[in-house]
Amino acid sequence: MVVSIGVDVGGTNIVCGAVDENGRVLRKLKRPTEAKLGQESVLNRIADMVRVIRNAMASEHFVSCVGVGIPGLVDSKKGISKFAGNLKWRNVSVAPELEKQIGLPVYIDNDVRLYIYGEAIAGAGRGYSHILGITIGTGIAAAIVNDGKLLYGHKSMAGEIGHVRMAGVEERCSCGLVGCLETVASASGMVRQAKKAIAEGRESLLMQWFPGGDIDKLTAADLSKAMDEGDALATETIIRAGILNGQALAAAATVLSPELIVVGGGGALAGDRLLGPLRDEFYRLILPDFREDLKIVTAEHNDDAGIIGSALHAIHQS
Amino acid sequence: MVVSIGVDVGGTNIVCGAVDENGRVLRKLKRPTEAKLGQESVLNRIADMVRVIRNAMASEHFVSCVGVGIPGLVDSKKGISKFAGNLKWRNVSVAPELEKQIGLPVYIDNDVRLYIYGEAIAGAGRGYSHILGITIGTGIAAAIVNDGKLLYGHKSMAGEIGHVRMAGVEERCSCGLVGCLETVASASGMVRQAKKAIAEGRESLLMQWFPGGDIDKLTAADLSKAMDEGDALATETIIRAGILNGQALAAAATVLSPELIVVGGGGALAGDRLLGPLRDEFYRLILPDFREDLKIVTAEHNDDAGIIGSALHAIHQS
Repeated sequence: MVVSIGVDVGGTNIVCGAVDENGRVLRKLKRPTEAKLGQESVLNRIADMVRVIRNAMASEHFVSCVGVGIPGLVDSKKGISKFAGNLKWRNVSVAPELEKQIGLPVYIDNDVRLYIYGEAIAGAGRGYSHILGITIGTGIAAAIVNDGKLLYGHKSMAGEIGHVRMAGVEERCSCGLVGCLETVASASGMVRQAKKAIAEGRESLLMQWFPGGDIDKLTAADLSKAMDEGDALATETIIRAGILNGQALAAAATVLSPELIVVGGGGALAGDRLLGPLRDEFYRLILPDFREDLKIVTAEHNDDAGIIGSALHAIHQS
Repeated sequence: MVVSIGVDVGGTNIVCGAVDENGRVLRKLKRPTEAKLGQESVLNRIADMVRVIRNAMASEHFVSCVGVGIPGLVDSKKGISKFAGNLKWRNVSVAPELEKQIGLPVYIDNDVRLYIYGEAIAGAGRGYSHILGITIGTGIAAAIVNDGKLLYGHKSMAGEIGHVRMAGVEERCSCGLVGCLETVASASGMVRQAKKAIAEGRESLLMQWFPGGDIDKLTAADLSKAMDEGDALATETIIRAGILNGQALAAAATVLSPELIVVGGGGALAGDRLLGPLRDEFYRLILPDFREDLKIVTAEHNDDAGIIGSALHAIHQS
């Protein structure tokens, strides 16, 4: 069977896996990114990981190509990472360099786009042609599958839903704007909002769990736990994030007409705590003609969708 | 030279024209739609108009196909108008019926999509690959050109930007929702808002221009005139519509990353009165990375874009 290798380059870890044509992960490897050692070191590490996986596959499978998902702005035609804040990369020639080292065709693209592609082709979106995917993590990003194909937009910059301005949000965003969705409705945004409220004297169970300076260790998972314990601050923070994501998705869906919305990323792990208010708000705002057909689901392969999508997209490009 | 015939079926008039491959209109005909006489009568009238134009062309040009733009929901694969409120049509078999009468391949599609396609290929969008088009008229609708091709979405329902819910808008929309963009920011919406303010006792030049019951004759063009005379109500109404359109377009562009936004329809005739505040709001809200590249322009062929787009899209389909 033909397999390809998918690589998901994150700020913390690189995950690399062999994936078959049906999107099954046959073997997987994870190593720290250590971006601080420089781009050459990261590229060498990716090439090493691909070699390890390829050798492990060699006896049974023919490895045809490699797909790499990279955060930030990617010029997938030239194979260049134009800007990746997490990695401190600017105009890094990823695909040509890896092809030289690996000796296989290498295709690169934005990591969220490939994650949603993985879900679209071999996950929650299997069988659907028009998908709007969103990942709720450190930031919030979207990817659009139109008639089975990824949509890129000018300069491959489609999908910046995290920077849609939301009414009633006044936080300053790292992009320079004020009121962007991701400032309060991403996983990191929810954590920031909760910490800020506590710093302003709001009472919460979280203060007992993380006394004093320890509050810096607060995660989105802790917010879910506190919501389950009935904590008002955690509950309000998650519900507000759900409502705002629902509003942004309703506006996007009204323009795009997807048949499925897939919600992934760390934030999706909050499950119905977040998805409940998100769905309620979404269906309240969406055109009646869209309502009956349009489902909102969570990602199926939250952890592996990145490598699955990278690998399958590479196969479909080659 | 190969020419095709474009037909734009509106609630009031049918316009039919011969268009060459470069998008030049060679000959044009306009007749009242008279939808009240029934669908058969309208289809016969379209076929008649196509015959007249075709005969006029016959000596010089080969007419290869016909494109028809129809308001509302269109199943372009089957050639069926699924729902057109203006025409009181539901599941009308347009393309098969016209093909029988005319003896040429007939392609149908949504009128706004074809209008924007006309602008994209042979108008303000010439040379651009990623275009977000909007028509501001009785309602507000969008069409998306992605990598040179029209985007349809599930059930061909992409582009319903007029039904994005806007913060601060409380009008009930004919779609059943509350606060849709088009309730206050379309040409008709602006007129309704101005009439409503006058009925509530707001002073305005318009009261002198249209005393008493005559206010029913108020048009969007009158609002432009009153704005030029310094009328506060007209000015506020148009500026508010510009700001709201700017907000909805900024949200859509953040997700789609177009390189050009084309504004057409009757509302675009207000020119910079509307486009000024629209642009100001749009650029205030859009990601800095998008800002430099993204232009907002008015349609070039406001009157003819529909027949040009219908004709060219038919050629490109055949």
